[in-house]
Amino acid sequence: MTGEEVKELSRKYVLQSWSIQKTLNPVPIEKAEGIYMYDYNGKRYADMSAQLVNLNVGFGNQAIANAIKEQVDRYCYLAPSYAVEPRAELAKMLIDLLPDNFGKVFFTNAGADANENAIKIARMYTGKNKVFSRYRSYHGSSFGAGNLTGEPRRFPLEPGIPGFVKFFDPYIYREAIDFPSEEAATKFYLAKLEEQIKYEGADSIAAIVMETITGSNGVIIPPKGYMPGVRALCDKYNIIMICDEVMAGFGRTGKMFAFENFDIKPDLVSFAKGVNCGYVPLGGVAVSTKIAEYFDEHMLSCGLTYSGHPLACAAGVACLNYYKESNIIQHVYEVGKVLGELLEELKEKHPCVGDVRYIGLFSAIELVKDKETKEPLVEYGKDPNGVMGSIIGNLKEKGFMTYSHENMLFVNPALIITEEQLKEELVKMDEVLAVVDKEYI
Amino acid sequence: MTGEEVKELSRKYVLQSWSIQKTLNPVPIEKAEGIYMYDYNGKRYADMSAQLVNLNVGFGNQAIANAIKEQVDRYCYLAPSYAVEPRAELAKMLIDLLPDNFGKVFFTNAGADANENAIKIARMYTGKNKVFSRYRSYHGSSFGAGNLTGEPRRFPLEPGIPGFVKFFDPYIYREAIDFPSEEAATKFYLAKLEEQIKYEGADSIAAIVMETITGSNGVIIPPKGYMPGVRALCDKYNIIMICDEVMAGFGRTGKMFAFENFDIKPDLVSFAKGVNCGYVPLGGVAVSTKIAEYFDEHMLSCGLTYSGHPLACAAGVACLNYYKESNIIQHVYEVGKVLGELLEELKEKHPCVGDVRYIGLFSAIELVKDKETKEPLVEYGKDPNGVMGSIIGNLKEKGFMTYSHENMLFVNPALIITEEQLKEELVKMDEVLAVVDKEYI
Ligand SMILES: Cc1ncc(COP(=O)(O)O)c(C=O)c1O
Ligand SMILES: Cc1ncc(COP(=O)(O)O)c(C=O)c1O
Repeated sequence: MTGEEVKELSRKYVLQSWSIQKTLNPVPIEKAEGIYMYDYNGKRYADMSAQLVNLNVGFGNQAIANAIKEQVDRYCYLAPSYAVEPRAELAKMLIDLLPDNFGKVFFTNAGADANENAIKIARMYTGKNKVFSRYRSYHGSSFGAGNLTGEPRRFPLEPGIPGFVKFFDPYIYREAIDFPSEEAATKFYLAKLEEQIKYEGADSIAAIVMETITGSNGVIIPPKGYMPGVRALCDKYNIIMICDEVMAGFGRTGKMFAFENFDIKPDLVSFAKGVNCGYVPLGGVAVSTKIAEYFDEHMLSCGLTYSGHPLACAAGVACLNYYKESNIIQHVYEVGKVLGELLEELKEKHPCVGDVRYIGLFSAIELVKDKETKEPLVEYGKDPNGVMGSIIGNLKEKGFMTYSHENMLFVNPALIITEEQLKEELVKMDEVLAVVDKEYI
Repeated sequence: MTGEEVKELSRKYVLQSWSIQKTLNPVPIEKAEGIYMYDYNGKRYADMSAQLVNLNVGFGNQAIANAIKEQVDRYCYLAPSYAVEPRAELAKMLIDLLPDNFGKVFFTNAGADANENAIKIARMYTGKNKVFSRYRSYHGSSFGAGNLTGEPRRFPLEPGIPGFVKFFDPYIYREAIDFPSEEAATKFYLAKLEEQIKYEGADSIAAIVMETITGSNGVIIPPKGYMPGVRALCDKYNIIMICDEVMAGFGRTGKMFAFENFDIKPDLVSFAKGVNCGYVPLGGVAVSTKIAEYFDEHMLSCGLTYSGHPLACAAGVACLNYYKESNIIQHVYEVGKVLGELLEELKEKHPCVGDVRYIGLFSAIELVKDKETKEPLVEYGKDPNGVMGSIIGNLKEKGFMTYSHENMLFVNPALIITEEQLKEELVKMDEVLAVVDKEYI
């Protein structure tokens, strides 16, 4: 097919996520390699969001590709009730990577169902019903994960499921008070959370679910002491702590798991994306030994046809081996430092940049009309003139592909990006932000 | 690894679906080909349930294997926002296979999320909230699909989502009245459904969701006129008709889609399993042109990272081509006739067989203590002595692998099974049923 044909068929027959379909004009991609994609005219695009922040190793990773092909020659699929080598091996590798309190893995197909099963497991284990999660969060779009989600992508799932309770995020940049210090902020947020736990009734709360570092709602990094504080509240009130590592896990933040940045051990970890970079759909929930033991004696009422899909697990084994052999964590740490410096320069230079937040290769640029008042470039939930869309369009024009959310731009490239590639691409961001300075504020 | 190692790692690190973990003793599978699996000692097992009724083409299908390998060499993954050849091609192929009222496809990872998105789409399109589904049904285990599900696998998801309403199945064999005719049964069930629609309020009902032919709850085939009758009620009350074809679709019943057996056109069709046989996880919702057009102008609030996964879609394209080139529908029709005859013989011969139900290669054997009273071999929801488990174990001993549900055994082999293979395996069923006759009734 030609690129035009692919685009036309696509528009004619495929319903695309989160879109008004008639506005779609998708770029047809002919091939892809490393951090680059190429359309059918040979135009090169740098993938500066690792697709949907899943493609940590970029396109065309040979280790994963070979593992998939070899597994295809054995068998692609066996049901969850059989003992299957790549499934067992990947589960062991994950448990070995996780802190010593972890025991077993329940595999799913992706991120939403990882969270669905995490809350089911927490409810079964505790016998309690309520589930806490935060407003500025995205945990998936199915009914369970979507009710966990705090942002507007939850609305189509309302009226909500009984027992899903939202609390506020430690989002200091936009808080309506000025905290004297990071410690003071932490103290405040933990006090409010504890107050809410008491008012909802600790005895009815099964779990607190958090993106360890909030991803698509703006790379919100919790203040010092916050995560250990939530852990302490969970311990105090017998609540299961669930870290959603779907986006932040597997090296993205410069640690294998994002919670390692805060020196805590969650009880359940939901994962997907980076576990095999989405070469084959895969997700799962890692479960503490204590909780896993409960299911030695009790029915685990979770199940899906493709739980522990052999082809997906074989890709996962190869992917985790690749992370280790390529020393990806060290690489992210080094290139991440450069990214941080470049983002700070952009903030310094551009009136439209209100805040930059970054850790490892996970970062967001928050656009404002005014650095002082912090007035967002587009009003929350509203962008009638498509300002953010046209900024993304300008970047795309220059071959810099990423996405936006509200008034934020994301820079989350594949973890294999080199310092040179990063610098080359951020020049384009600099140029586009200069246009924003001039035209939109 | 040795088979013992695979089994031990598996038991140590993997949480298995729907199980009390300490009771698990999974067979380690070393290789698989066609309808057969082999453990590490070389013992052969015939897969008489096509794994979880997904592996329609059996193991090792070369057309699908090659398509996956070729796609791996292009790219494994591209985000839903790009125009991608195998995704566009598969969407077109599906729409071409479906009736002329169908327009577009929204892709998901599997069956549960196919149903999740089907009901979201129905709610968005109609602006109504309630969703009807049946008691004897399984639609998946995530919160949305699990609330659709009528059988006990729904219970861990309660308290339920507001607006999910259950109605009764046309399960004539176990109905507490004797119908004078199939027509009378149909009339009765449709009248009860209409009564319930009125009492729930037609203006608040978005959709009626049904497994076209109920699968894991016992291959319940609707009586003549029932499905057209439901279609008429949907038209009368402006309700979206959703056929869950996850298990029954793609040739299983001797038609490409199970609803073709009843000469109706649904509005939405959820699918998974047979679309690519689970070689790579894939599911989706096919959407009528009328409903698809609504989303030209309105936001489709559905989305998932792996929507339209290129590797999964490439496997789907190859699989649908294989169905066509191998003339699988005709084959199912022919071998299905033999299966029906063999099942009728078993019913004739064995006092423990109360009912056999079959269509194409989709069948269930319902076990009873007494043919006259129809008392089930095990009480509903209870099997304290593990009677069904030991029957499945006896079959497995003989190399016949399948699963049970309540008092029912399933015979749903890969659609490529030959008449000879089927006969060879059903001898084993005959032998095991003789043991049941003697020991359990
Ligand atoms: C933090 C987080 N959790 C869950 C999900 C849902 O994952 P999926 O799209 O695979 O269902 C996402 C997707 O972006 C995510 O970022
Ligand atoms: C009719 C039906 N719908 C939905 C599902 C759920 O599919 P999955 O297990 O892929 O989520 C199944 C699974 O067996 C099914 O049989």
